[in-house]
Amino acid sequence: MLKLVTERLYLEDLRVGQRFTSASHLLDAGQITKFASEFDPQPFHLSDEGAAGTLFGSLAASGWHTAALTMRLLVESVPLADGLIGIELELAWPKPTRPGMALQIFSEILDITPSRSKPDMAIVTLRSETRDQDGETLQRLTVKMPVFKRPTG
Amino acid sequence: MLKLVTERLYLEDLRVGQRFTSASHLLDAGQITKFASEFDPQPFHLSDEGAAGTLFGSLAASGWHTAALTMRLLVESVPLADGLIGIELELAWPKPTRPGMALQIFSEILDITPSRSKPDMAIVTLRSETRDQDGETLQRLTVKMPVFKRPTG
Repeated sequence: MLKLVTERLYLEDLRVGQRFTSASHLLDAGQITKFASEFDPQPFHLSDEGAAGTLFGSLAASGWHTAALTMRLLVESVPLADGLIGIELELAWPKPTRPGMALQIFSEILDITPSRSKPDMAIVTLRSETRDQDGETLQRLTVKMPVFKRPTG
Repeated sequence: MLKLVTERLYLEDLRVGQRFTSASHLLDAGQITKFASEFDPQPFHLSDEGAAGTLFGSLAASGWHTAALTMRLLVESVPLADGLIGIELELAWPKPTRPGMALQIFSEILDITPSRSKPDMAIVTLRSETRDQDGETLQRLTVKMPVFKRPTG
């Protein structure tokens, strides 16, 4: 089922297995080196020359850049009314993110566990895969988030 | 033992229990809203007004901003010769990161598992806590990274 971004979702609107697909974001070398200069200034994230002879071979984005871009696309594609607030998560980067890739996020609700102490809340587990334009997985994220019921009255 | 940042560490230089302490980074509201505008544009990361009535109450940094700043401080404080390359990780944010906080990273090597297929490599597990100026933990990160032996010949 296609969800409009203008729809704001509460706990009652969510079910295990529900899926969300983001728009895509085209990454270029300038974005990669700008992020890396500020947050992850390692040679393989700054130039092809710096990446030569490393595990990456040529310029690759910081995994934290892939994660931050994923968050941007998640905010736009998983429209939780009270926002996306991660408590804890697991993250893996099976493949480097490169200039020229178009990133798109495919998310699915894995679990909904009602809070024992807060009757208006549940912890929702979302799995989000960040894929390139060929469908290759660049990042796997599994995150637990508090989600609230629709306010009453 | 205090390690100079100019020292470049190879696998032979690492041991379980080894610790690393970063410099501190003072965060302000401008940095928080700039990052959030680009990567996590949710109201509670953009202004005090937007955070009122949410779980955060007042302006709080995106967890991905805390993570990215942590990476910057890790690059400066854990001087692995071949770089810090995360394969997979676990991350938790027990407490919001706020304007005015000075972030500092306390890291410890938890495990070193030699690769079965690559004799010059091991997977090193590093735990890094991001703490504020009062020693309160803002982020817990446990990350697995490939680390290589000193090249020979």
